[in-house]
Amino acid sequence: MTDFSYPARVERWGVFEVSCPGLTGKTPFTDYTIQGVFTGKNETLRIDGFYDGNGTYKLRFMPSFTGDYAFEVSGSFSDTAYSGHFRVEPAGRDNHGPVRVANTFHFAYEDGAPYYPLGTTCYVWELQSDELQKQTLETLKKGPFNKIRFCIFPKHYDYNLKEPRSYPYSGKPMDSSVLTKENFLRYMGNPPGNEWDFKCFNVEHFQHIEKCIAALGDLGIEADLIVMHPYDRWGFSMMDAECDDLYWKYVIARFAAYRNVWWSLDNEYDLMPQKKTGDWERYASILREKDPYKHLRSIHNCRSFYDYSRPWITHCCIQRQDLYKCAELVQEYRERYGKPVVLDEIAYEGNIQHGWGNISGQELTRRFWEAACRGGYAGHGETFTHPGDILWWSHGGELHGESPARLAFLRRMLNETPGLGLAPMRGNWDETAAAVEQPFGDSGYYLFYYSFMRPAFRDFHFDNKNEYHVEVIDTWNMTIEDRGYCKGTFRVALPGREYMAVRIRRKGNHG
Amino acid sequence: MTDFSYPARVERWGVFEVSCPGLTGKTPFTDYTIQGVFTGKNETLRIDGFYDGNGTYKLRFMPSFTGDYAFEVSGSFSDTAYSGHFRVEPAGRDNHGPVRVANTFHFAYEDGAPYYPLGTTCYVWELQSDELQKQTLETLKKGPFNKIRFCIFPKHYDYNLKEPRSYPYSGKPMDSSVLTKENFLRYMGNPPGNEWDFKCFNVEHFQHIEKCIAALGDLGIEADLIVMHPYDRWGFSMMDAECDDLYWKYVIARFAAYRNVWWSLDNEYDLMPQKKTGDWERYASILREKDPYKHLRSIHNCRSFYDYSRPWITHCCIQRQDLYKCAELVQEYRERYGKPVVLDEIAYEGNIQHGWGNISGQELTRRFWEAACRGGYAGHGETFTHPGDILWWSHGGELHGESPARLAFLRRMLNETPGLGLAPMRGNWDETAAAVEQPFGDSGYYLFYYSFMRPAFRDFHFDNKNEYHVEVIDTWNMTIEDRGYCKGTFRVALPGREYMAVRIRRKGNHG
Repeated sequence: MTDFSYPARVERWGVFEVSCPGLTGKTPFTDYTIQGVFTGKNETLRIDGFYDGNGTYKLRFMPSFTGDYAFEVSGSFSDTAYSGHFRVEPAGRDNHGPVRVANTFHFAYEDGAPYYPLGTTCYVWELQSDELQKQTLETLKKGPFNKIRFCIFPKHYDYNLKEPRSYPYSGKPMDSSVLTKENFLRYMGNPPGNEWDFKCFNVEHFQHIEKCIAALGDLGIEADLIVMHPYDRWGFSMMDAECDDLYWKYVIARFAAYRNVWWSLDNEYDLMPQKKTGDWERYASILREKDPYKHLRSIHNCRSFYDYSRPWITHCCIQRQDLYKCAELVQEYRERYGKPVVLDEIAYEGNIQHGWGNISGQELTRRFWEAACRGGYAGHGETFTHPGDILWWSHGGELHGESPARLAFLRRMLNETPGLGLAPMRGNWDETAAAVEQPFGDSGYYLFYYSFMRPAFRDFHFDNKNEYHVEVIDTWNMTIEDRGYCKGTFRVALPGREYMAVRIRRKGNHG
Repeated sequence: MTDFSYPARVERWGVFEVSCPGLTGKTPFTDYTIQGVFTGKNETLRIDGFYDGNGTYKLRFMPSFTGDYAFEVSGSFSDTAYSGHFRVEPAGRDNHGPVRVANTFHFAYEDGAPYYPLGTTCYVWELQSDELQKQTLETLKKGPFNKIRFCIFPKHYDYNLKEPRSYPYSGKPMDSSVLTKENFLRYMGNPPGNEWDFKCFNVEHFQHIEKCIAALGDLGIEADLIVMHPYDRWGFSMMDAECDDLYWKYVIARFAAYRNVWWSLDNEYDLMPQKKTGDWERYASILREKDPYKHLRSIHNCRSFYDYSRPWITHCCIQRQDLYKCAELVQEYRERYGKPVVLDEIAYEGNIQHGWGNISGQELTRRFWEAACRGGYAGHGETFTHPGDILWWSHGGELHGESPARLAFLRRMLNETPGLGLAPMRGNWDETAAAVEQPFGDSGYYLFYYSFMRPAFRDFHFDNKNEYHVEVIDTWNMTIEDRGYCKGTFRVALPGREYMAVRIRRKGNHG
């Protein structure tokens, strides 16, 4: 038995990695196994490892507690038995652990710090040129987003015809020089010309994605990993169950120890008729079995929702079903599913030809506020035509829209919520009203949003006893105007512009 | 028998009025009757007359054909029998007769000329000061509207606390000096202080409304009369069945001969719980019996629709049920009811505190286009705060909004439709597409509307054979840009702004 003591120290919710030399005689990804058992004072976890190429096998572990840990490595990958021990230090200042569901409809980091998701989508940002990836990370660093959705497999679709920087498997892709904006749909699925070994992963592809996950983690951004998707010309969406399961296990073994990982089983699962409900449920059961950290899990629709009431689904991950209404339905979704409602696709700010990618910054921001004040969370995306077909939505790069600045303002507002999130309030029919989500009682914190309506004033009455602090918020111009304290029935003058909100806080409770 | 031969001549669809002296010994409105039988070559109509005060009884008749007519007057109003004859001349240039339902979902004048309703609402414009009424008529003359909704009874509601110029009955109103913006709701219905004789009409009230109907007719504007409504502090909404029926018969006898009259049984019928379905159906049966001209008939909702499939209802007269969606549902309503869909309340352009009265000109115009391209018709209203509480929506006066100019542009577009109206077309999911309504075949006339979406271009393909004339329409900036002829698959560049449309016409068919 070889005793490891490197790296000896790791912070709580950090990645502790064990690297062991092993056998390569047969096919390392399928014919050898590696497992680890990690034991601390408060937990014992059994972890599957993975082959990382060059005769190296690895185990990754995320400790949930501080203190001394020991581990033992076993499996057919080696005749040698490995073990070791290490110390888990307290989490660093910006490390709050993985994000969890909290208070039924909201999220919080494992250390209890609130997490108000404000996500964006860049489907394959991590498979672009180094320069573009660097730019994306710089944009994210400056921007308001604390979650990003992206795919592990490369993407084939309109504006996505180029080769990715790497492929997940050993082999050879079809010749993409035949593709045009007019004919690309004919090559969806598994057209001739692809030669892949679905039992031999290209470890560099996964190593690179790990670096990206870690880089996002450094920026405080959750990596909402889209594990499967239908936008494919390489056959990765058309593998058989054995290869699918091998892929799922490999992905979990490699990525699960990163605290900022969320699992999105699929993007637009209902556009993959080759996968049945039984398949999705099987992937979900692999996830439940193999991810000991219980990262957040969901699945994204095109037209029809997956059944979000399934026990393995931690939160709704919704694409709007209607051109006109979606954020306005958050309350209905909350009641139906009893889980956090994340609307990760409600049309993107942009000007491309597709209706899902050409709404204004005003309209996207409006949808975010509608969702927020109903106790849900909307998602951003950007699709402006660009000379090199570099669209944030898929490739990352720079943001050109008007909404991100406003979403930063919304995030600031959400951060001021005295609790884990907002809940829809029984307001008037013509205002979207939010209070603080809580099991009992009245929070004394109210947010009224007027959307595209433009009242010149509104009258309020809570009680005749308390004083209320009133602020008028211009969600588009990003201003908060202090109107002092009011009591009884009081009138709040408004500018008669769209996108206004009023925040009212009971004196003594808040502000 | 006294033989009348005045006024001897009337134009087709004009008002021929017979005036006879009669008895006043008992209560003239209830205790005496007057009927007329009018006979021309193509029609014989039996008409109820009415008491017009000062010992005068009247009969009004609208001839639907040219040529010689004779009439005979009977009833208990007089011991003398009256009769006469007159000649009906062809209709004047701007007189197309009453508006009828045509081609299932649309309207046309009785002479076959198309009528594309573009209505507005000024609930009690005709009960304001002479000066304000004059201003309203001037505004209407300059504006795009060809229909106006207004009430016969005065209106009591927010912004409507003043006394009307006249009352429909003899008697005395409650003291309105006690009313404030805060307490007015307490006086809804029939509060103490009102003293009315519901069997004695104030003829001057009705005489004045007739003048207003005629003045609208001179401007080519249909008078969509709201016969009952709940916004009442005088008890006019709370009368018993006998008085209601007396009112209905009086209204029909006085107004039905004006060709531009439409009947709206009620405004927000569902806010009048004192009236049951049986009452509305009874009023409708009075209308069917007593209005020989079969003017258009409908009834307007607040929350729940009346059953528009009832045979007496000629068209849907809809207030939106949802804050966000209504014009977008026109196709659904067409399929459900198989009648013209008029959305006469879809929120008004303005800035008052109420959500039904503070949307932007852009949003109101957008709703008009959505409705039009789905084969329906939206309605306008305006509710800007004003120093004297003069809001177009209720009082008329001047228009201050940005939508009317755009609605004039829409009316111009509709006037260019080669047929009686537009029909929803099976377009793409992200465009509202219209063709010409017709029973068979393909019109070769297409209108694509992009609403709040902002595509930088769209691709089209109809066939490989025909040439198509393409125009890019900016519905907000009111421009039509000629893009010449295209064939096969073609791309239309667009400016990436909201509210754009594309009109495409097959060469040979149109344009």
